[in-house]
Amino acid sequence: MKGTSFGSDNHAGAHPDVLAAVVEANAGQALPYGDDEITAHAARLLQDHFGKDAEVLFALNGTGANVIGLQAMARSFESVICAESAHINVDECGAPEKFLGSKLVDVATVGGKLTPALVERASWGKGDPHHTQARVVSIANSTELGTVYSLEEIREITSYAHRNDLLVHLDGARLANAAVALGVDLGELGAASGVDVLTFGATKNGALGAEAVIVLRPDLVPAMPYIRKQAMQLASKMRFVSAQFVALLTDDLWRRNAEHANEMARRLAAGVEGIPGVVVTDSVGANAVFAVLPPEVTAALQEEFTFYVWNQATGQVRWMTSWATTPEQVDAFVARIAAVATAHAAAR
Amino acid sequence: MKGTSFGSDNHAGAHPDVLAAVVEANAGQALPYGDDEITAHAARLLQDHFGKDAEVLFALNGTGANVIGLQAMARSFESVICAESAHINVDECGAPEKFLGSKLVDVATVGGKLTPALVERASWGKGDPHHTQARVVSIANSTELGTVYSLEEIREITSYAHRNDLLVHLDGARLANAAVALGVDLGELGAASGVDVLTFGATKNGALGAEAVIVLRPDLVPAMPYIRKQAMQLASKMRFVSAQFVALLTDDLWRRNAEHANEMARRLAAGVEGIPGVVVTDSVGANAVFAVLPPEVTAALQEEFTFYVWNQATGQVRWMTSWATTPEQVDAFVARIAAVATAHAAAR
Amino acid sequence: MKGTSFGSDNHAGAHPDVLAAVVEANAGQALPYGDDEITAHAARLLQDHFGKDAEVLFALNGTGANVIGLQAMARSFESVICAESAHINVDECGAPEKFLGSKLVDVATVGGKLTPALVERASWGKGDPHHTQARVVSIANSTELGTVYSLEEIREITSYAHRNDLLVHLDGARLANAAVALGVDLGELGAASGVDVLTFGATKNGALGAEAVIVLRPDLVPAMPYIRKQAMQLASKMRFVSAQFVALLTDDLWRRNAEHANEMARRLAAGVEGIPGVVVTDSVGANAVFAVLPPEVTAALQEEFTFYVWNQATGQVRWMTSWATTPEQVDAFVARIAAVATAHAAAR
Amino acid sequence: MKGTSFGSDNHAGAHPDVLAAVVEANAGQALPYGDDEITAHAARLLQDHFGKDAEVLFALNGTGANVIGLQAMARSFESVICAESAHINVDECGAPEKFLGSKLVDVATVGGKLTPALVERASWGKGDPHHTQARVVSIANSTELGTVYSLEEIREITSYAHRNDLLVHLDGARLANAAVALGVDLGELGAASGVDVLTFGATKNGALGAEAVIVLRPDLVPAMPYIRKQAMQLASKMRFVSAQFVALLTDDLWRRNAEHANEMARRLAAGVEGIPGVVVTDSVGANAVFAVLPPEVTAALQEEFTFYVWNQATGQVRWMTSWATTPEQVDAFVARIAAVATAHAAAR
Repeated sequence: MKGTSFGSDNHAGAHPDVLAAVVEANAGQALPYGDDEITAHAARLLQDHFGKDAEVLFALNGTGANVIGLQAMARSFESVICAESAHINVDECGAPEKFLGSKLVDVATVGGKLTPALVERASWGKGDPHHTQARVVSIANSTELGTVYSLEEIREITSYAHRNDLLVHLDGARLANAAVALGVDLGELGAASGVDVLTFGATKNGALGAEAVIVLRPDLVPAMPYIRKQAMQLASKMRFVSAQFVALLTDDLWRRNAEHANEMARRLAAGVEGIPGVVVTDSVGANAVFAVLPPEVTAALQEEFTFYVWNQATGQVRWMTSWATTPEQVDAFVARIAAVATAHAAAR
Repeated sequence: MKGTSFGSDNHAGAHPDVLAAVVEANAGQALPYGDDEITAHAARLLQDHFGKDAEVLFALNGTGANVIGLQAMARSFESVICAESAHINVDECGAPEKFLGSKLVDVATVGGKLTPALVERASWGKGDPHHTQARVVSIANSTELGTVYSLEEIREITSYAHRNDLLVHLDGARLANAAVALGVDLGELGAASGVDVLTFGATKNGALGAEAVIVLRPDLVPAMPYIRKQAMQLASKMRFVSAQFVALLTDDLWRRNAEHANEMARRLAAGVEGIPGVVVTDSVGANAVFAVLPPEVTAALQEEFTFYVWNQATGQVRWMTSWATTPEQVDAFVARIAAVATAHAAAR
Repeated sequence: MKGTSFGSDNHAGAHPDVLAAVVEANAGQALPYGDDEITAHAARLLQDHFGKDAEVLFALNGTGANVIGLQAMARSFESVICAESAHINVDECGAPEKFLGSKLVDVATVGGKLTPALVERASWGKGDPHHTQARVVSIANSTELGTVYSLEEIREITSYAHRNDLLVHLDGARLANAAVALGVDLGELGAASGVDVLTFGATKNGALGAEAVIVLRPDLVPAMPYIRKQAMQLASKMRFVSAQFVALLTDDLWRRNAEHANEMARRLAAGVEGIPGVVVTDSVGANAVFAVLPPEVTAALQEEFTFYVWNQATGQVRWMTSWATTPEQVDAFVARIAAVATAHAAAR
Repeated sequence: MKGTSFGSDNHAGAHPDVLAAVVEANAGQALPYGDDEITAHAARLLQDHFGKDAEVLFALNGTGANVIGLQAMARSFESVICAESAHINVDECGAPEKFLGSKLVDVATVGGKLTPALVERASWGKGDPHHTQARVVSIANSTELGTVYSLEEIREITSYAHRNDLLVHLDGARLANAAVALGVDLGELGAASGVDVLTFGATKNGALGAEAVIVLRPDLVPAMPYIRKQAMQLASKMRFVSAQFVALLTDDLWRRNAEHANEMARRLAAGVEGIPGVVVTDSVGANAVFAVLPPEVTAALQEEFTFYVWNQATGQVRWMTSWATTPEQVDAFVARIAAVATAHAAAR
């Protein structure tokens, strides 16, 4: 890794409080596979947000959590509609297709966000046995492009979905960032918005590695323990996974971490405004900044900082901030971008 | 959980050195998905045991590690021969069948151990397209019944297998216990014994949750990263997984932990010898003791200690020890078994 | 093929009436995929046997028909209990595991027949997420060993199953032979016996190649067209499949064919009675005779007739008869068996 | 079905010579599952076109044949690149995803035809374990849009593919129509063009229901029998499937049937030229005509003829001809289109 990384929020470590909770969880023996008290505690804390009837299952990583949720909702002849840019579509090595046996119907979007109209267009062929049957709409909040669905946008989708016998899955790998961006509680992004199954990602929010699947439709609940186990996502010494959630859900650490990450992204976006040749391309909703840079500027910056080119064709790059990004790191990065880009512009 | 648990070695927490390594791994940023230095270090430490050419992939839990290894070895029309009592057969909720699409051909065994003769009998139908084609022999060491394959027994199986176009998978969830029981290094249970793919379980050896898949056939290596990712077993902040291995592989902590666990099992087995009505049923090879008790004795003991009935029909129970079991805990347990069983015998 | 074949009932061709129906079906154009009148007719004829509410789906072969039915009944974490000798277990190259992703729990039986006690023993682990959950009991009638479940035996199984939240699948590749053996109508082997999904095999009953899946639980029906299509079992020019059923279900051709086949088996079994060294091992319920012969006798007979050794270890062979087997063929075979076996016995 | 159908080439029956071959195949007993002489004969006839080393496997329907071929070429983490309009993508109810567990990467095309540039764009992410790995390029000839790849176009794709470690699959459901359109032999569309695995569809060419999978890469051959069986595509009384191929491959019946079908499409396309409001939208390469009509004209015509709207949004319809379509049927259809469309145009 070269210099400070703005490559991803998973380049950060774990928040000290999370680590402390893990260390504390190590006292004595405990029943495995989630039958311990820390796991019960963590589930209750999540239910405080998502409702008393929310079924909570802890999982090991984001791909696993997504697949567990989707498997609960779709049979193999049923399809999952998602954005072309969805993590489940491009970053999970086909795990959903492999595990569900289902087709993912991916849709070109603006800013990584589905709309009822896009879902409708992708749902053709209902009742025709030659076609996979649209069953699940999968959205991410915040999206993979750093944008955020408003509550109203989510409700439009869930409302359309439920009127058309579709279920809604929400990939919440960065749910905290979305909640903070919208100024709402985590729970408002769940049942209150009509979502049927969602994930809540702790890893990018300051954990070592921990995800939750939250099931809000009672009819889906009975199968969940078997689905999780068969999906290889059941931790043996579960207390060490759930302790991470206890830490993040205590004193709103999840919120503080996400607020900080989002603020750092805004600081970065504001900082690069007006730098010649640097164009921020998407609205900065959460903790990602997408910008187009001259390739030479990108190359020069990558000698000193770690970040990724998102789109070779357009020269678009992604910069991500995390709970651990400092204002000083952002300012140093901005200063260097300004210097390199300005020099580049002058040389042309 | 009631009282001290002899229920499973995963009722124990993590060894302090492992926790310390995880805490230490948290310094600063790191590349995710295994592209970090701690992961490289952990892989080198495993290669010190398994050979320079061993391909090492860290995974999230034992079921996942097993499935990754098996998926590398078998196509869906190829079958996996295993003991009826194998973890992959009875304790993974059908994850192998789901993920591989393959049949598991399970075989009744003595002590959970396959033999060339048993494998041969289970391999019928070669060349006949109506039958699944035997391709993988999967053994566990130590076994789910607490027994241990000797090096010679493994070599007989691997030698038979390779002569018959079969590959050998070793479920090493308790590999350390087997190595210690045999007085050999971990590596002698790998390529040196002819095994093609094995797992090395850290979780039960004192980790929080970490497993390794070790691939010893070069032709299987190129597919491994994709298989692991599609199997939902690729950790994002990998350093926290691999740091656990660094701790266990430093100063032979893995060996000390396993030696202790095995010694506690022997102490327990020796302790109950001669207690009326208590019969140890399998040789105590590693860190498990299987014994038959009168059901009333079992019920009374379960009021004060945690352990499981293995076979309702025979009254067989399983007692497991771990790196954290203390001699005092064993002695207290033995004393209570003696008291309850003796009283029970007297009352008849 | 050497001489007359008693190797399998699928060595026979198609009954002339079936061929004639196929030829007749060729007049003019027709809607594909089952939207034609011949298919509607065939479905009605099957409903005359299995009930007005029976959902009928035609399929292309026996393996496909079995898998369609099983896929309707089990999710991937649910298992299918079957006899060790079941076609789905040993003769479908793992198609059920591949397509369902489910475990088949195979059970050693007497004569290829499950019982409630055997099912109960194979159903352990209910409610435990580490174990696949027993969901389907699959039986075959007649069985792969030529035996026949009585109506009472089926009802004992279906009754046990339904009390224990299990569904019952019946592999009816030789359903006609079973019905004739029991002296009942086809329909009595369906809903009347509590079976939930069954197949009815036309191929071995005198068709060119045609199978039906009959679904008797209304809640399973809506998914069936998609399952069939995704299982690659939907014929394009369906009329040529369904016409075969029309022929077999007209004037009870199915019954006449099965009666003849069963009678030929009885004639064969009776004929070999008392021949030295030849022991018929299973009751001859349908159109198969299982017998143990000296290997040298088997080898000599296989020079002049086609049939298969069923069990190398015991010397057991299988002889099958079909709608097309003639009494003359049986008598010639019996005469040759007698001659070879008698000579062999004398020579010892 | 209303009136004459131009709905699909599978609305036609079987050619009389095919039926006669099936009837003839019924003489006496035969070994099942393809071990009979008719199957050997049919395979040799196909090898006369595709080469002595071509491995031929007969299958039951087009979806099955496609899936068998694709399963031979891709592991589950490898993806299949195809046109958005591909049959495997939109008309097989997700059978490829279900059976392979692989992602289909579908690409928007002109006229249903891939190009090296399109393939390249769809192949990103090579070497990155987060992405499925492009492995197979699947094309259809003739395409689902009635267009035909020239030999040069195929070679450009296969050459690009092989340079980039990709394999090429050809869906030949209408291979005969493509060969005739190009004036080449069937075989020139196989190995000679660099294709690795293709299907040859007999059903639409005048059979009752029969497909062939032709494997041209020797390394893929050994697995094929197991893949076919596990994919539920192995016919029991195979002779009735292969006899259909014998008929079509004798005296070039396949060619005569395809020539006739293509000629009827050209006659139809020529006939509608100049009719007001009727625009033929794609080049008529094979036996399909795609045209845009005023919706009212379509509705009126559908009262008297059977055909399908292909695209509701644009008013595009598909008209297909077959080996059985007569010039009189075409002329009557053209006359009616002219009458209805002219009246409609006049009324506006």
